[in-house]
Amino acid sequence: MPDSSKSIEFAHSQADRYLAELKEFVSIPSISTLAEHKSDMQRAASWAAGQLGGFGMQHVQILPTAGHSVVYADWLNAPGQQTVLVYGHYDVQPTDPLNEWVSPPFEPTVRGDNLYARGASDMKGQVHAFLKALEALHHDGNLPVNVKVLVEGEEEIGSPNLGKFVHEHKELLKCDVVLNADSGIVRPDQPSLVYGLRGLAYFELWVYGPDHDLHSGQFGGSVHNPAQVLCELIAGMHDANGHVTLPGFYDKVRTLDDAERASLAEGAHSDAEWQRMTGVPQLYGEKGFTTSERLGARPTLEVNGILGGFTGEGQKTVLPARAMAKISTRLVPYQDDLEVEQQFRDYLTQYAPPTVRWDLRNLSSAPGVLVERDTAAARAAGEALAVTFGTQPLFRLEGGSVPVVSLVQAELGVNSILLGFGLPDDNLHAPNEKLHLPNYYKGIDTYIRFFNAMAA
Amino acid sequence: MPDSSKSIEFAHSQADRYLAELKEFVSIPSISTLAEHKSDMQRAASWAAGQLGGFGMQHVQILPTAGHSVVYADWLNAPGQQTVLVYGHYDVQPTDPLNEWVSPPFEPTVRGDNLYARGASDMKGQVHAFLKALEALHHDGNLPVNVKVLVEGEEEIGSPNLGKFVHEHKELLKCDVVLNADSGIVRPDQPSLVYGLRGLAYFELWVYGPDHDLHSGQFGGSVHNPAQVLCELIAGMHDANGHVTLPGFYDKVRTLDDAERASLAEGAHSDAEWQRMTGVPQLYGEKGFTTSERLGARPTLEVNGILGGFTGEGQKTVLPARAMAKISTRLVPYQDDLEVEQQFRDYLTQYAPPTVRWDLRNLSSAPGVLVERDTAAARAAGEALAVTFGTQPLFRLEGGSVPVVSLVQAELGVNSILLGFGLPDDNLHAPNEKLHLPNYYKGIDTYIRFFNAMAA
Repeated sequence: MPDSSKSIEFAHSQADRYLAELKEFVSIPSISTLAEHKSDMQRAASWAAGQLGGFGMQHVQILPTAGHSVVYADWLNAPGQQTVLVYGHYDVQPTDPLNEWVSPPFEPTVRGDNLYARGASDMKGQVHAFLKALEALHHDGNLPVNVKVLVEGEEEIGSPNLGKFVHEHKELLKCDVVLNADSGIVRPDQPSLVYGLRGLAYFELWVYGPDHDLHSGQFGGSVHNPAQVLCELIAGMHDANGHVTLPGFYDKVRTLDDAERASLAEGAHSDAEWQRMTGVPQLYGEKGFTTSERLGARPTLEVNGILGGFTGEGQKTVLPARAMAKISTRLVPYQDDLEVEQQFRDYLTQYAPPTVRWDLRNLSSAPGVLVERDTAAARAAGEALAVTFGTQPLFRLEGGSVPVVSLVQAELGVNSILLGFGLPDDNLHAPNEKLHLPNYYKGIDTYIRFFNAMAA
Repeated sequence: MPDSSKSIEFAHSQADRYLAELKEFVSIPSISTLAEHKSDMQRAASWAAGQLGGFGMQHVQILPTAGHSVVYADWLNAPGQQTVLVYGHYDVQPTDPLNEWVSPPFEPTVRGDNLYARGASDMKGQVHAFLKALEALHHDGNLPVNVKVLVEGEEEIGSPNLGKFVHEHKELLKCDVVLNADSGIVRPDQPSLVYGLRGLAYFELWVYGPDHDLHSGQFGGSVHNPAQVLCELIAGMHDANGHVTLPGFYDKVRTLDDAERASLAEGAHSDAEWQRMTGVPQLYGEKGFTTSERLGARPTLEVNGILGGFTGEGQKTVLPARAMAKISTRLVPYQDDLEVEQQFRDYLTQYAPPTVRWDLRNLSSAPGVLVERDTAAARAAGEALAVTFGTQPLFRLEGGSVPVVSLVQAELGVNSILLGFGLPDDNLHAPNEKLHLPNYYKGIDTYIRFFNAMAA
């Protein structure tokens, strides 16, 4: 195995420059879901392409899709060695509620050990860490393996165009394994490797009542309030034990055996830690499962947003014409995302009253996935983590969804290794997102060691 | 009784000017609940004061309150005659959803028989109609009775400062009866008189879960989603028969006897008419009651607005930190509005789960009211309506709330006569609010006849 020490030494000597560059990257408000940020999306793609070309990657391209572009580059000068496709995304989540940010989301600010900015942890910090690892390996001579890099711009909206893109670029993206950096570890001092991810099916449910807003005094009591109906439908989606009631929802859910339950319990956060991290008065969840099982091994249904009627300051006595909720399900293997959509429709057909009309829109959809634990790449990642952190990684199931993992399994026939350095309290998708900087630097070291460990 | 014909003839000759003036009045965006319209509120008050002074009312004043001002004027030159206090309000509801208006809400537009504008029917049209009646009587010589006019600016936010104002100006406002113009009739060709109004208790319910927004994949399944809890709480507020479940809610509700039920049924809209007017696929309501009973004689609980999490375009996989609903109850005699607030708190104490915190804010509160049907003023109003419309008025219960009616009963010890000309399909509080212009003009005639009929 090539020695990593010279590359790591170089990377350490560049720490200040790396942070300055990362601040540039996270300053770009590349919010993929908001049309007004289209030019920021293009800027972020160009920034990533500029980095790749800057340290010697080849065939750097910004490839169009029906939505936001994909950044691609490769370095294929290690004959006989494996080809690793490195995956990341340059888009970020919206920033609202904006007034809860201590420092503005696109003005990166270091406080203590952390860099605060939207996208710092999810996942510009992780993308920048693997870019810097590749740069350091280049500086030290050559990469020990063949590398392709794909950085997409639509992960935060469910990667709607990536399937077609991968399908149409199968030859370009051909590889032995995917290094997916969109991941995290349990604690700053406890590395971990993810072997399963939840899928996601994201819906908008609209309930329509009267054909225009009505005066709640003049009409209240004579028509079914759509906001009330929406609440009644949502309330019925969980039973008293926290189980989801969509018909057939659990039919294909993988069951846990005792060994896997014991492995998941190892190193898991205690309920007290989890409660402190979330700030809730009491935890909640599906009866019969521990918190870590609920998070990784069980499917969920969440209301991501709800809106109807008058919500400004003061009062307006309106009976709204319609109400809407954004509702997403997190799926586990072997639930089928399209079957879940049908289960949702079955539920509404059965329970929506005849006093309203409804419409269910599927905004995005991806199944859950399990990753092989005993592969060369998994062993390389485990070694790299163990050396860098000085302790063996735990194996765990991740509650979030990374649709590209199942996509590359289906289209390219390859496994993914999930190797990233986010932390559970990084405030992903929330105000005051942060990146733990010591982990960012350890991430660079780990990626350097991973690429060397992949060499034959 | 003084003859009304000369005043009515004068009013008819001024029809075009009246409409032009009314358009001026409704052009002022006097939305009392929105702080940014404070100067518009002052403009609307000045406009009303200018009208009163313009045709000879005396002691015109714009009197401050802790909120929006009250416009006052009087004419007390009919010794030995009764004193009528005429009530109206110059504030209007907000205009959202703005994109559903066919013409902009503050650009009054005549289409067919109707004038479209926010406030056209509720209630600048009614205010302007009684101003023009008083003007025509002045022009014809003198008013036959003593008149005081009070036009407030906070009706649409529950008249929070009017109680104190009336209490502090008891002598100024002393009168024999109140003519309250904030009312309507059943159909353009069928006049009616309201003998009971529902009260209103308007709340904001906040549910708090995690202390910040969470990633729904990373945390979903381990904490109770506040939007879900809010839906569960709201869903529980009605039972399967449409009864409100707040403990004790119906304890003091006045029961209807067969005679009153028969009287309410007379001239009521058919369910088919009501369904067409609202556009719902099927009517809904409390089991055991007809639509007109549900509207006037039964209390209700409505969700006026609901908000939580991400509600913009696209998707954001957030588990929101909090969710809010605006919920109002319409109360009937003899429900106590403060007892209802306590019932709401009791419900939440009993049913809110320990996984969240909640907060209930009472935004405004007023009891329901019954008005005496056999008084001199009621007879005068009945005669004026019968002559103007050529048919006897019906008696009915009104679903809306006019807090000032109970207030003047308590503070001044006087009855109100509810005499206004709005229609059920005027889109009050909704987009495309309209005023039926033939009724506006008939309203002026009716008010002229009413004042003359009040003369000894």
